[in-house]
Amino acid sequence: MNPGDLLAETPEPPYYAVIFTSLLTPDTAGYAEAAERMFELVKTIPGYLGADGARDGVGITVSYFRDEPAIAEWRDHPEHAETRERGREQWYEAYELRVAKVERAYGFRRSTVD
Amino acid sequence: MNPGDLLAETPEPPYYAVIFTSLLTPDTAGYAEAAERMFELVKTIPGYLGADGARDGVGITVSYFRDEPAIAEWRDHPEHAETRERGREQWYEAYELRVAKVERAYGFRRSTVD
Repeated sequence: MNPGDLLAETPEPPYYAVIFTSLLTPDTAGYAEAAERMFELVKTIPGYLGADGARDGVGITVSYFRDEPAIAEWRDHPEHAETRERGREQWYEAYELRVAKVERAYGFRRSTVD
Repeated sequence: MNPGDLLAETPEPPYYAVIFTSLLTPDTAGYAEAAERMFELVKTIPGYLGADGARDGVGITVSYFRDEPAIAEWRDHPEHAETRERGREQWYEAYELRVAKVERAYGFRRSTVD
């Protein structure tokens, strides 16, 4: 989700954040492969800006999109829809999906003086 | 962060999400205690609605607030400001803070039929 353990880099706001929090069932067969596939697939959506993800018990994925049409295109992607359905049938005990408009953002990077 | 490994329960939108993503330095002495203390402290802020958090490499904490004044009150809390400063000095390699207005939300809970 965060290749090389880097934080997602996003443009100046405004843009959108899709916040997906979830709890898994014990039946996670196929889940990791599907998650990896979805992560590759979302990159093909025009207006997809990046994502951050972590799981320890609760899983959180925050995906960033340029605008609402980009979010709709991802939601309506047939393979994504199919995988979501499998998620509800098999992998997810519970989830929450929140669509939020990012209004402002601040970053910090440690300055390295060698 | 998520007591009993439950997802945060939030009211109907609109409300705000403060999305904090971070990478830690190797020097995490005191970090867990400070994170726990901040989690207790934020609960005292009127308008704080809950939070979800996970870390595996990248850390993500999404805190939910009723409105902007609640976010400002948390930002300006003296002990929080002090801990943020220590974070920049010691614990954080990098972070991003995004303030986003949640416009809509959907939930799923597995129905249990025994």
